Amino acid sequence: MQHKAKHEVEGKNCINKFNAVEDALYVIGGRWRLPIIAVLSDGNKRFIEIQRSVKGMSAKVLSHELKELELNGFVTRFLQDEKHVIEYRSTEYSRTLKKVVHALDEWGKNHLIKVRQR
Amino acid sequence: MQHKAKHEVEGKNCINKFNAVEDALYVIGGRWRLPIIAVLSDGNKRFIEIQRSVKGMSAKVLSHELKELELNGFVTRFLQDEKHVIEYRSTEYSRTLKKVVHALDEWGKNHLIKVRQR
Repeated sequence: MQHKAKHEVEGKNCINKFNAVEDALYVIGGRWRLPIIAVLSDGNKRFIEIQRSVKGMSAKVLSHELKELELNGFVTRFLQDEKHVIEYRSTEYSRTLKKVVHALDEWGKNHLIKVRQR
Repeated sequence: MQHKAKHEVEGKNCINKFNAVEDALYVIGGRWRLPIIAVLSDGNKRFIEIQRSVKGMSAKVLSHELKELELNGFVTRFLQDEKHVIEYRSTEYSRTLKKVVHALDEWGKNHLIKVRQR
């Protein structure tokens, strides 16, 4: 795992609830990382399968995000022997994000219901 | 509340766990929105107080994000009569994000511990 927490990079020592949220978003923020991690939590996938599951993401962006996720220890790339294809799988560490993904999932669903009611 | 869920905008009807995570991130994603919401969950704040609490965010960005958060029903701007200053407060709807903020906070703290151990 190559990444550092944002406040570690900045040489600060403070941990409080706001900084921890910022730290988390520094590593897993952005529009695509958590959706990719959520998709892979459902099982190993090929590049094209991930792209199909996460709407609106170009191949170039997915390629970049997968490299970042691999570098940061959330995803591994491997040769699926039986199918002779490259697949991606989520790591043990990415499974520590389960609660975050679940909370976002739940909120997203309730938000959609709210939006539809209006 | 003016925002729509991403899949609502795109005219799609599908709800599944990946889309809900994407929807959530479409509305509250990015580097600053959740940290701002987290800071305001701790009490009403002036512009400068929010800026001091969320490290690395310029006044221009904060101004833009606060407008977006206000437009989307997460934050309200009001005149604090006693102090004669403008303050921002989180809305009832932003408090529905409590679990998301808590999960990110918890993950961020554990991540920092992990990074420091290496």
